[in-house]
Amino acid sequence: MTTKRIPVIEKILSANDRVAAGNRARLDAAGVYAVNFIASPGAGKTALVEQTVHGLSGRFRIGVIDGDIATSLDAERAEAAGAISLQINTGGECHLEAVMVQAGLEQLPLEQIDLLIVENVGNLICPAEFELGTHDTVLVASIPEGADKPYKYPGTYRGVDALVINKIDLLPYVPFDMDYFRRGVEVLNPDVVSFPLSCRTGEGVSTWLEWIAAQVEAKAKAR
Amino acid sequence: MTTKRIPVIEKILSANDRVAAGNRARLDAAGVYAVNFIASPGAGKTALVEQTVHGLSGRFRIGVIDGDIATSLDAERAEAAGAISLQINTGGECHLEAVMVQAGLEQLPLEQIDLLIVENVGNLICPAEFELGTHDTVLVASIPEGADKPYKYPGTYRGVDALVINKIDLLPYVPFDMDYFRRGVEVLNPDVVSFPLSCRTGEGVSTWLEWIAAQVEAKAKAR
Repeated sequence: MTTKRIPVIEKILSANDRVAAGNRARLDAAGVYAVNFIASPGAGKTALVEQTVHGLSGRFRIGVIDGDIATSLDAERAEAAGAISLQINTGGECHLEAVMVQAGLEQLPLEQIDLLIVENVGNLICPAEFELGTHDTVLVASIPEGADKPYKYPGTYRGVDALVINKIDLLPYVPFDMDYFRRGVEVLNPDVVSFPLSCRTGEGVSTWLEWIAAQVEAKAKAR
Repeated sequence: MTTKRIPVIEKILSANDRVAAGNRARLDAAGVYAVNFIASPGAGKTALVEQTVHGLSGRFRIGVIDGDIATSLDAERAEAAGAISLQINTGGECHLEAVMVQAGLEQLPLEQIDLLIVENVGNLICPAEFELGTHDTVLVASIPEGADKPYKYPGTYRGVDALVINKIDLLPYVPFDMDYFRRGVEVLNPDVVSFPLSCRTGEGVSTWLEWIAAQVEAKAKAR
């Protein structure tokens, strides 16, 4: 009796994933470490961009691609903080897609950038489904959102490489069960690194900056 | 010289809108006033459901349809507060659609319900694009999200009938420019009624309860 091997095609790249792979190759060729920030509206993605640019612009050259349905408010904040920034208005789309980032990469002087932050549209669901070609995805959670979010948005929590838990300065003023939150994260994504911090007060930000600086340096060495 | 009148078809109902119209007819026939709560994750939709059920369950019979990607946490909270509740898990979908609400209506004893609250998936973008057949849509904003949200999510702010501004108890602890927020709302949706309140402390909740009670009573009279 012979066993016939059935060929299994594990993953056919979607059109988006093909463009994302091209973005990744382009970033790698330029020695740029790129990270995708995703979060609910108002969790503090832009504040984290500002803290990161303030904290690291002496060491690295930083670019920011800001995705929003409308306005250039976020890109203006990133620019004011000292980054080379670019706004993408999706015109209603609830997430960035790789082709939008591709268009952004064509506009940016990649050879002059070490760290590229892509700030996605504020949405805890849809952005998680679209690869952009960045090296890591960082989820920015925030204390006033409540501790049940890992349970209610499992797909998003499962897929991220790092977790920032922002607005810890509000812990005295809102009910938030950190143990319950962490248990939910642990089940979905046991290896994720997490950074409780407050972009407003600066508490905990230095640990985050050390982590992202290490990623940028590793990418530069690997070139 | 004659002027020829060109027929203009203003709106062809999409499949979703047709189902939504059927839902509306069913609710009207049963004398149920139905409202769709939309918000970012963690803005406080479920807390507002709880406050509304606590505040009005002596006067009205209340049903709740809870939409989430996963878990029945929200429906359990609504049930515990005293509502007839039903959880819809979208299994990844980022919004409720009319057909999901239709399935919910088939499960609920509509003749025993005066007020039906449909709590949409936590998402400030996609739910605004899908009519469900409810009579009004209420957007639940929250103070820690920041005052720039009307500017960045104009489609959502433009389409709602009432605006709850939750978590006003956090105003002393977070930067939030209420004038800037209100100017953004005013431009997009000048006639919207708004209710600044705190589901946590109860401040402002009674004004909200009066408004929604008036809607329920108007619907019952119109039957």
